[in-house]
Amino acid sequence: MSVRVQKTFEALFALEDLRGILRGSLPTGLDEEEEKAFREKISDLKSIIAELEEDRGTPRTTMIADTLPIRSREENYINIQPIQAAGRLTTEARKALISYGDGYSTCDACRKPFRLDKITKPSIAGFHADLAKFVNMDQARVVPGARRGFQAVASTLVSKGDPVIVSALAHYTEFLAVEEAGGVVKEVPLDAGNRVTADATAEKIEEVIRESGRTPALVMIDHYDYQFANEHDVRGIAKVAHQYDIPFLYNGAYTVGVMPVDGKAIGADFVVGSGHKSMASVAPSGVLATTDEWASKVLRTTAMVGDVTNRKFGIKEVEMLGCTLMGGTLLSMMASFPAVKERTLHWDEEVKKSNYFIDALLSIEGSKVLSEYPRKHTLTKVDTTGSFDTVARTHKRRGFYFSDELAERGIVGEFAGATRTWKLNTYGLSWKQVRYLAEAFQEIAAKYDLPITT
Amino acid sequence: MSVRVQKTFEALFALEDLRGILRGSLPTGLDEEEEKAFREKISDLKSIIAELEEDRGTPRTTMIADTLPIRSREENYINIQPIQAAGRLTTEARKALISYGDGYSTCDACRKPFRLDKITKPSIAGFHADLAKFVNMDQARVVPGARRGFQAVASTLVSKGDPVIVSALAHYTEFLAVEEAGGVVKEVPLDAGNRVTADATAEKIEEVIRESGRTPALVMIDHYDYQFANEHDVRGIAKVAHQYDIPFLYNGAYTVGVMPVDGKAIGADFVVGSGHKSMASVAPSGVLATTDEWASKVLRTTAMVGDVTNRKFGIKEVEMLGCTLMGGTLLSMMASFPAVKERTLHWDEEVKKSNYFIDALLSIEGSKVLSEYPRKHTLTKVDTTGSFDTVARTHKRRGFYFSDELAERGIVGEFAGATRTWKLNTYGLSWKQVRYLAEAFQEIAAKYDLPITT
Repeated sequence: MSVRVQKTFEALFALEDLRGILRGSLPTGLDEEEEKAFREKISDLKSIIAELEEDRGTPRTTMIADTLPIRSREENYINIQPIQAAGRLTTEARKALISYGDGYSTCDACRKPFRLDKITKPSIAGFHADLAKFVNMDQARVVPGARRGFQAVASTLVSKGDPVIVSALAHYTEFLAVEEAGGVVKEVPLDAGNRVTADATAEKIEEVIRESGRTPALVMIDHYDYQFANEHDVRGIAKVAHQYDIPFLYNGAYTVGVMPVDGKAIGADFVVGSGHKSMASVAPSGVLATTDEWASKVLRTTAMVGDVTNRKFGIKEVEMLGCTLMGGTLLSMMASFPAVKERTLHWDEEVKKSNYFIDALLSIEGSKVLSEYPRKHTLTKVDTTGSFDTVARTHKRRGFYFSDELAERGIVGEFAGATRTWKLNTYGLSWKQVRYLAEAFQEIAAKYDLPITT
Repeated sequence: MSVRVQKTFEALFALEDLRGILRGSLPTGLDEEEEKAFREKISDLKSIIAELEEDRGTPRTTMIADTLPIRSREENYINIQPIQAAGRLTTEARKALISYGDGYSTCDACRKPFRLDKITKPSIAGFHADLAKFVNMDQARVVPGARRGFQAVASTLVSKGDPVIVSALAHYTEFLAVEEAGGVVKEVPLDAGNRVTADATAEKIEEVIRESGRTPALVMIDHYDYQFANEHDVRGIAKVAHQYDIPFLYNGAYTVGVMPVDGKAIGADFVVGSGHKSMASVAPSGVLATTDEWASKVLRTTAMVGDVTNRKFGIKEVEMLGCTLMGGTLLSMMASFPAVKERTLHWDEEVKKSNYFIDALLSIEGSKVLSEYPRKHTLTKVDTTGSFDTVARTHKRRGFYFSDELAERGIVGEFAGATRTWKLNTYGLSWKQVRYLAEAFQEIAAKYDLPITT
């Protein structure tokens, strides 16, 4: 870890120790002993900051709670891990988390009717309205991950044995949500370019009806899938689904928060997004948005009445199980939201950087892109069997030589040891970082005499 | 906000700004412009720390992301809010959150078989084993809140129309979990002391069988309820449930993490706890623990197979929807865990402090305790209709006079404006803080000429 990064963490931790002293004191102020501890900690802090400023000093702390190493991969490295890129917190989210980390921190001003999305201090109610608008749907709720959005919809719409149409590239959480609701997934086959088309979806629906005698309860398709991040024709698929009167769930785990998403233009009945994957938020977090029509079903309020007490919890929503993200998860979403909204407007630039890197990789002879190309996304599946893997075959570290070379250049996030097919994500890297990344790959190729096309 | 608290937050935020600069840089170091920004920020930081040390200066920052006020109630006040007390983060958890806030921060070293509870770096697998041991059960999983634990169990065990036995003081999330699974709650009536007994549970089970012809699918009882925090005879109730071959879910939202819980001694088939309520963790978080016998059902792995691709996601657990807490929520639980384990050994002392405060309140004539007394818990429902409310009746601020008086003394967390029946929690306050709290209440009583028994 660089000294500056180490010292930045140490200074943050020293301040948390100070906070601990403040928390243990009376509202009237510190007593003599606390004052002494406070002074000592300030003195420590000043000496840490001197080290930070002068870029010197050995580590004072390496573990949190004696067991957890400090995680500094975002500060010390360029991280190309496929699922982490767009979930990195913004600086404002990190500040919000410092302030709102405590358990039920959202609940200070919870008043009747006692539901998370009705709280106005902080402006959680306003955030929910903004979220719905952001994806152009009527209503939105925050959920503990996109998977919990799939679950809420499947649990509402899918009965035992019901078929549900998903993509042959569907994420495993879609499988599980359908299984948990008692349904059965039916996959739409891919075309030659590994894409799901409207026609193939129509054919699959016909086939399912013909073979099972049941109309699918739901069509659930990823706009960009998790394997190739290829774009699938969600607009055409929504249209097809509606021709059969089947509701359409738009899986935006790889889109909501990184590119503009217009749920109504797509024809989505449900839009699901992921906070920790694409909205710069703490896990588990996500969004489920829907139309007013479907809200009355998926966001139905409880009808259960206590048989002895006659208790009713009228405004609580069954599928949400009441409140969902009662603290730091939600506040990180809210604090990142202005930046997230803004960044979706610059998606084109992110795609340009993605293609810039991929072109550099392709210049290393034998490298291939398994995703559609040119790229329309920052997540890409590549095949370096014909380039970097040729070295791995005889290297004593096998595929790990490649990880070693990347790490030496301050790059992490590749699947350690993998040199054949693997995924990476350039999202959020600056041009300077992307250029550095591209050069690093070419440098490694050159070092091992892999030919580069210029 | 006190100057010291304000300056502590400002210093933390300045360090996050520094971190932002580090994150935007190349692995080779800062460029000229970044270096300049870094130097300037360090200079800001030093001036903030000088203000912190000298206890002076006006606020430089009051909002996060321009919209979120800094939350400082734990630093500036004694907080007696009923549900927030035991969810406050430990200092180590706050450090972990600084380090592991980013989206999928747990996933750096995720390897085959790709499941959260199998990750060994950081030691998430070990934490899961420790968690199971902590509540003396065979297996444990982390879940997004206790409610998601109820849901997993209900979804597995409860079929359409199945009765589920709950307490007449059951939390609303139990109602919702049963409703979501298609079941119907049947409440066990309370005894004269507002407690659920084993006998009453047996009678209720008999009544349900008689009237519906169906044996309840599940008995789910809170050890201490959310209304009075009275203790209910979970051990006797588990025994009764088992006499009818009904599995027993122990709701430990108000126990796991604050007092010792021995699931096997209780006879629990499921133990559910809440991270943000009682384990000093970020929301939403919690634990579901079970026996090996029930694990094969509730933690069953997926059986779904893609009809086109033949894909299977074998090790993923259906009710967990795969991975659950993939980042800061889990890491806050882990960082707090050593302190949480330790604090459960001092529960007696917490109960003493609770009774100390309640006795002081009762010394103000006309005050009553609605919870069982002497207290066995730190959460208590009180009735001040005969004391503080007599002032509210003629005060121009009505019940808010009481909130004003508390706030003036640095106490928050009462339900604003409520002077009749309301709840409070003394958990985690030091003796010094509890004494201060008791004196503050008596001082307010004296100010308004409410008689105090000595």
